[in-house]
Amino acid sequence: MALRIIGVIGSSEASQDLMVLAEKVGEELARQGAAVVCGGMNGVMEAACKGARRLGGLTIGIIPSNDKEDANPYVQVPIVTGMGVGRNVMLVKTADVLIAIGGEFGTLSEIAHALDLGKIVVGLGTWKLEKARPSPIPNLIEANSPKEAVEIALKAISTQR
Amino acid sequence: MALRIIGVIGSSEASQDLMVLAEKVGEELARQGAAVVCGGMNGVMEAACKGARRLGGLTIGIIPSNDKEDANPYVQVPIVTGMGVGRNVMLVKTADVLIAIGGEFGTLSEIAHALDLGKIVVGLGTWKLEKARPSPIPNLIEANSPKEAVEIALKAISTQR
Amino acid sequence: MALRIIGVIGSSEASQDLMVLAEKVGEELARQGAAVVCGGMNGVMEAACKGARRLGGLTIGIIPSNDKEDANPYVQVPIVTGMGVGRNVMLVKTADVLIAIGGEFGTLSEIAHALDLGKIVVGLGTWKLEKARPSPIPNLIEANSPKEAVEIALKAISTQR
Amino acid sequence: MALRIIGVIGSSEASQDLMVLAEKVGEELARQGAAVVCGGMNGVMEAACKGARRLGGLTIGIIPSNDKEDANPYVQVPIVTGMGVGRNVMLVKTADVLIAIGGEFGTLSEIAHALDLGKIVVGLGTWKLEKARPSPIPNLIEANSPKEAVEIALKAISTQR
Repeated sequence: MALRIIGVIGSSEASQDLMVLAEKVGEELARQGAAVVCGGMNGVMEAACKGARRLGGLTIGIIPSNDKEDANPYVQVPIVTGMGVGRNVMLVKTADVLIAIGGEFGTLSEIAHALDLGKIVVGLGTWKLEKARPSPIPNLIEANSPKEAVEIALKAISTQR
Repeated sequence: MALRIIGVIGSSEASQDLMVLAEKVGEELARQGAAVVCGGMNGVMEAACKGARRLGGLTIGIIPSNDKEDANPYVQVPIVTGMGVGRNVMLVKTADVLIAIGGEFGTLSEIAHALDLGKIVVGLGTWKLEKARPSPIPNLIEANSPKEAVEIALKAISTQR
Repeated sequence: MALRIIGVIGSSEASQDLMVLAEKVGEELARQGAAVVCGGMNGVMEAACKGARRLGGLTIGIIPSNDKEDANPYVQVPIVTGMGVGRNVMLVKTADVLIAIGGEFGTLSEIAHALDLGKIVVGLGTWKLEKARPSPIPNLIEANSPKEAVEIALKAISTQR
Repeated sequence: MALRIIGVIGSSEASQDLMVLAEKVGEELARQGAAVVCGGMNGVMEAACKGARRLGGLTIGIIPSNDKEDANPYVQVPIVTGMGVGRNVMLVKTADVLIAIGGEFGTLSEIAHALDLGKIVVGLGTWKLEKARPSPIPNLIEANSPKEAVEIALKAISTQR
């Protein structure tokens, strides 16, 4: 049977604060028995995988290049796409729900794809999208801590479509 | 030699106002000898193709399904991806510059991919992304009319990257 | 309305003999008013585009890299996928029918995808697949000349599926 | 650190004989501590996953549709591509080496992509490609049993590129 798989998205170059958040998110997901899927590279992605691996969680990296050696060292299952940022949408489709930590335009593309596909995104210091258009965005939920983010995310799996 | 190719993005279900804007953008692009690339479906995409074809412009539709018959009737060159919304990023990569007309989450994913790849996006009533984060976004430029949007877009081709 | 689009596939490094065949195929397709879609690179792809352009045909190149400048100089419409050989299947889906000229493993992947999708492939000195398994392969048809290959291909458009 | 990941490819509708072979291949891979990656659907793919799960092996399914529920029940990690047969090439890139069991045109596309990318394919009753062209194909190796196929595959990981 398929595992619960939570997407963790964010920049490959992130501040120390965001990296700490990501690592705690990874730890908490592993503690709850959920797998992490991410883009497989550095920054937030690596921190989340590192946290998950510390507690024995499964880590999946959907990597942009053609070489599995490009994955960060905490990825156990590198999915090699060779599609560059074209892999972002696949990460979104593979995740049951997503946690966005900070993030630049690449992360924004993933949030947009997720909302487009009806998925829930839990944010930790990420894009305030509701300010960018008139109507509210109920599927983008800001959390106050890594623990709360994981809590909301896991609860969302059972309720969303 | 490769043609100049301008991406026109926006919702498949758009208001009459946005449809009129899109058709004028298509016309103006054809008038300037530039090809239109879009997602190949209805709404803004169809209106832009319709406008372009009226003046003899070339229209390319990068369609999500496996069946070229799904393209709107104004698409001359349907590129059949079978990738669903995974085709969005390809549209962005194929366009020299993009014009975003209105738009929901799918369009947002394309704007985000474009900015991530260093491309310029000209907006007509689209997402106000600069309000969604602290720092400005110089590559997302709001225009006041279809004519101005095309003007900015064509000028951008020579200057970007 | 969508143009008739014929895929021309074959090696990026081809013998002079195959290049001559490809150029003649491109010419003949243009003469018949059909567009050429290919992988956009060199060898057979470039020769087919060159032939088509000589007679004013439309040439589409679905290129593997992220840079439209990588397309051969006879491509008018470069579709930029950034998917590497992952673009092969999209070329196959976009083509109404395919003409395979010589070819190595990349071409074989395209022939296989085409047959898998129920498309007809006309061969000029390409893989003899029927020898590689017990049962015949009616959709892979060897032609004796570029002219005959185009004839079979165009006839196939109306009859297939 | 990344696991060793072996691709198992073959038809979604396979004879009982091939299914038995696939299940034994899955078992043997799990016994050797290697993960299975496959297309995630039925037939050979399901049999290989079933065999692997019986001995506690990790099973990854790179599925063509947008819905993880489409994966066979023995897939633990469904990678949701929404790319149809466009996912074949990704399976090939993700696998360190491949074992082909029987197979129709879809499997042939995967064998071709693998050989194109310099990967080794071990065959059990699959395409006799060397008969389809003049020159030999050293990277396509026929095995006599599931055990031998796994042995050759695991040895190949250390030696290829």
